[in-house]
Amino acid sequence: MSLLVVGSVALDSLETPFGKREEILGGSACYFSTCASYFGPTRVVAVVGEDFPRAHLDFLASRGVDLSGLVKAPGKTFRWKGRYEFDLNTAHTLDTQLNVFADFKPELPEAYRDSEYVFLGNIDPDLQRQVLDQVRAPRFVACDTMNFWIASKRDSLLETLKRVDLLFVNDAEARQLAGEHNVIKAARKILTFGPRAVVVKRGEYGALYFSGTEVFAASAYPLPDVFDPTGAGDSFAGGFMGYLASRGKEEPAVMRRAIVLGSVLASYAVEQFSLERLRTLTAGEIRARYAEARQLAHFDDLEVDVLGALG
Amino acid sequence: MSLLVVGSVALDSLETPFGKREEILGGSACYFSTCASYFGPTRVVAVVGEDFPRAHLDFLASRGVDLSGLVKAPGKTFRWKGRYEFDLNTAHTLDTQLNVFADFKPELPEAYRDSEYVFLGNIDPDLQRQVLDQVRAPRFVACDTMNFWIASKRDSLLETLKRVDLLFVNDAEARQLAGEHNVIKAARKILTFGPRAVVVKRGEYGALYFSGTEVFAASAYPLPDVFDPTGAGDSFAGGFMGYLASRGKEEPAVMRRAIVLGSVLASYAVEQFSLERLRTLTAGEIRARYAEARQLAHFDDLEVDVLGALG
Repeated sequence: MSLLVVGSVALDSLETPFGKREEILGGSACYFSTCASYFGPTRVVAVVGEDFPRAHLDFLASRGVDLSGLVKAPGKTFRWKGRYEFDLNTAHTLDTQLNVFADFKPELPEAYRDSEYVFLGNIDPDLQRQVLDQVRAPRFVACDTMNFWIASKRDSLLETLKRVDLLFVNDAEARQLAGEHNVIKAARKILTFGPRAVVVKRGEYGALYFSGTEVFAASAYPLPDVFDPTGAGDSFAGGFMGYLASRGKEEPAVMRRAIVLGSVLASYAVEQFSLERLRTLTAGEIRARYAEARQLAHFDDLEVDVLGALG
Repeated sequence: MSLLVVGSVALDSLETPFGKREEILGGSACYFSTCASYFGPTRVVAVVGEDFPRAHLDFLASRGVDLSGLVKAPGKTFRWKGRYEFDLNTAHTLDTQLNVFADFKPELPEAYRDSEYVFLGNIDPDLQRQVLDQVRAPRFVACDTMNFWIASKRDSLLETLKRVDLLFVNDAEARQLAGEHNVIKAARKILTFGPRAVVVKRGEYGALYFSGTEVFAASAYPLPDVFDPTGAGDSFAGGFMGYLASRGKEEPAVMRRAIVLGSVLASYAVEQFSLERLRTLTAGEIRARYAEARQLAHFDDLEVDVLGALG
């Protein structure tokens, strides 16, 4: 099955409690496509500047990522500079240089237009719909967004959501989008906006999935060493959508495995700076951590003789 | 099997976003023993004043709670006044009147001294050890504590922990006790202080269990309506220890079920003020929510043909 992603390709500069890095590979499309690549090829729609290092493209190509929709535009590549505090939970943006991203008008190569699975990375919701307009018959569309678009382009975002099957948000975004503090109520309200499923990402706590009457709670893999949380959400989405596209069906058991795989990919991505950990990650390691996640969450039925006496 | 709890019996006055209540039944020993009562009787060691309403004692007795270790002392009952903000996560103490609790010297009736399972509620760690000194051969001792004791009586708390099998803490307490931000590292460090198991309670996110190489992550039941979080931790401990004492063995599968049952009892306790929801809660409802928790957390093994191609 064919999987398409539109998103950013970036050069990130980061400060974390564990060190600093300048102009390392980042961007939602990179994290997403690399994580999805374990399950099959991904078509990338994005833009880079003339200064984008060739080695990064070679890496993505080596993972089987289809870069025919990656445009090289005159000017400099999108840059993001951020700092994480000791708790690693919140990214503080220090600087954003849109550069070639400022004039990004996503155009799909003809060969991309039959894509069945589509991930709309966290970009302007107007652009998200422009991408959808160019896909002939998408089978399953997932979408990411952020507080900035929820606040500044709410109406446009709601238009996009009407055309989306699944929305990825974090706790705070879910609350903000729904105007509802309780995250369960917030998720249920978001389901009335269009998507038939919502994944609420809760960082170190895991993720919740809501669809119809279906609720699934996945615990995050308990990591003793989180190094760089950049790209965790896009890695989650990449593992999720890559697996989903490889299955070609969206039944509940498949969605649950997709969420756990998303969580596993995200758990690896944050172990090192940038996409470094994903460069060495093997399918066997993904399988092993998935098996650990099963063991981590497993518990048996109650014995029949419990709760008998005074219950 | 015999289960003993030492803790507080209190009259709580609460302000929540959903309303105020004055002098309602509270205290760790009440929540604990009521939740444990679904699995078997609990022996209570605590103190009340002369003003403590008879009806509360009648309620506890109706649940099969053994009150022969509940002392009525001259003076007034312990009172706590607190306020919860909109997010319901943090309790702000507005007033504490220790009253008869100030001179509490726990003394176990002779019939309590053969107790096998012991829960040391969140009281002065000196008193926690005084209780243990009076139990002849405890089989399994669990302990609760709080930031106040971790900061002000750390050495005494560490003495208590040497004699404890399992510690219940929340995220923040685990970090504070271990001096370690990452909660997984914090839990591992606490295991070197004495307990052979640690349960890290994470409120709306669930709980983590650590023991040796065993890790279990339980998601909290996703509640759309949390009303009054008072007593959630003690309800968790009551469900956990009540079930454990009813089993008489501490193997990993039993511990996992105990954690889920603790989570289920806590999820019911917070649905109404005080112990109100526990007055009507049935064994069938506990079973039903346990079954829901199983469904909520369930996912299958990966298919064999996944991760084959580029992995």
